[in-house]
Amino acid sequence: MLNRDPKDWLVLKRTVRFGDTDAAGVMHFHNLFRWCHESWEESLESYGLVALEVFPSSLREGLETKIALPIVRCDAEFRMPAKVGDQLLVEIVPRKVDSNSFQVKTIFKSDNNCVAIGNIQHVAIDVLTRQRCLLPDAIELWLEASLLDSDIQSI
Amino acid sequence: MLNRDPKDWLVLKRTVRFGDTDAAGVMHFHNLFRWCHESWEESLESYGLVALEVFPSSLREGLETKIALPIVRCDAEFRMPAKVGDQLLVEIVPRKVDSNSFQVKTIFKSDNNCVAIGNIQHVAIDVLTRQRCLLPDAIELWLEASLLDSDIQSI
Amino acid sequence: MLNRDPKDWLVLKRTVRFGDTDAAGVMHFHNLFRWCHESWEESLESYGLVALEVFPSSLREGLETKIALPIVRCDAEFRMPAKVGDQLLVEIVPRKVDSNSFQVKTIFKSDNNCVAIGNIQHVAIDVLTRQRCLLPDAIELWLEASLLDSDIQSI
Amino acid sequence: MLNRDPKDWLVLKRTVRFGDTDAAGVMHFHNLFRWCHESWEESLESYGLVALEVFPSSLREGLETKIALPIVRCDAEFRMPAKVGDQLLVEIVPRKVDSNSFQVKTIFKSDNNCVAIGNIQHVAIDVLTRQRCLLPDAIELWLEASLLDSDIQSI
Repeated sequence: MLNRDPKDWLVLKRTVRFGDTDAAGVMHFHNLFRWCHESWEESLESYGLVALEVFPSSLREGLETKIALPIVRCDAEFRMPAKVGDQLLVEIVPRKVDSNSFQVKTIFKSDNNCVAIGNIQHVAIDVLTRQRCLLPDAIELWLEASLLDSDIQSI
Repeated sequence: MLNRDPKDWLVLKRTVRFGDTDAAGVMHFHNLFRWCHESWEESLESYGLVALEVFPSSLREGLETKIALPIVRCDAEFRMPAKVGDQLLVEIVPRKVDSNSFQVKTIFKSDNNCVAIGNIQHVAIDVLTRQRCLLPDAIELWLEASLLDSDIQSI
Repeated sequence: MLNRDPKDWLVLKRTVRFGDTDAAGVMHFHNLFRWCHESWEESLESYGLVALEVFPSSLREGLETKIALPIVRCDAEFRMPAKVGDQLLVEIVPRKVDSNSFQVKTIFKSDNNCVAIGNIQHVAIDVLTRQRCLLPDAIELWLEASLLDSDIQSI
Repeated sequence: MLNRDPKDWLVLKRTVRFGDTDAAGVMHFHNLFRWCHESWEESLESYGLVALEVFPSSLREGLETKIALPIVRCDAEFRMPAKVGDQLLVEIVPRKVDSNSFQVKTIFKSDNNCVAIGNIQHVAIDVLTRQRCLLPDAIELWLEASLLDSDIQSI
């Protein structure tokens, strides 16, 4: 997987939909976090991970996710209004914080202008004990592949 | 519980919030179903049921919900626009369909005019086999108490 | 536009995301209506319509939508649970009801099995008077193109 | 209004609903921001403000909101999982940042333990020019009344 172009799984697209707006006529703020999380899921999937192996589900039929990745903090900056039909470029910038946690920054652009930035920090916990644990291997791979990409970019 | 005034758990209130609206300036349609479900939960709670005994949760710590109540169909009619700040009266009209399923009609009124009506039909299934099963006792009690109330109303 | 393959704008894809689920482990029912509406918007866009010409927005800068398309009723059937990561085929079946209204049926399939069906009925109203009016030309074109497609299919 | 007990409009309640959860069995993170915004609206309303005078709506019928209050940044910390049925105490701590902007911190507690904290920063803009402007008088009054309250608390 590491040979594929990271652009395929770290640069995505999203269109602002009518239900994302509020009566002020533009995107209602908290939908940004839904966009961030969905973009992260799309990135994992495009990189090659299987959602049922990362996320809990009652219908796993044998696949047992023993590690959950709850969110411990998040923040967002809103720089420009986003209106229905806007086609956004979505750049995903992952960062490993320590052996138990990682952060995903998501930058939304329209016509090369930054519309908004979201940051989400996850921590890995053992589902049964709810104690912190090492990040799942699949997430480690995805984080490393992202770093390789940014190393190349910074040369 | 049956001696309490059913008005306390079948007639509720709800205020339209800004995030419920879209760029047309009024409530975005699918939020109605969220309102219906939340009103149903509030009704069960006000009647005396404990949410963790009715709904699944990963943190039940011993409370094991063996029956789930998935929704098999729902519909809604929208008669008047609802705008931010509107204070709605919420009337809940439950109906047992058969030994495995029930329906909850929810009527939203503003100044005695009907704004919208939602209908949600649930079926009881065994969580492990996913086969239909008898309704949980707690739901049966809530349904019977509602019927008693409407019997009295129709005299 | 009528020469393009209708499959491009009446058959879409959607992946179930983690935030679409609830504690029962599967898609929370009302998200289906969000999926329906977003699929309809994606269909209009893929057919060639501009969102800002169909939907209201405070930032239209001259584009004045004089017709709104509020939803007057909707319904859904849920046949199978949808879990995180499920990749759904989305079939859109529009139907003109009368000169003022139309319906969009949306069928969600997984591995050729029907997961759920949603129906949404819109009515055209003049934004200022809030009286019913003729459907916007753009919507008429989209409806006619869809019918041409289903005529061909039924031969 | 200043003579009323601030507890009535700065300390609220909220129950976690089933639709707030995800397949991990607990509250899905971004719903916290919906809770924060709705609690803020409830606080304004309980203090005595009229929603239609603060928030835009297409159905204002004469009430013209010339000032919008878009959100420029927000953040949240999640300290404990919140499960369906949890009854939360909601404490609202407003703060004026400068003549154009204010922040609302919202603290969610369960059994006196902090479950989560959300922060939302709004800026006042003129709807037509989209330039920063002075905060609306109604918001100034609400902010001052909140400060009076915290002054009393700190004595």
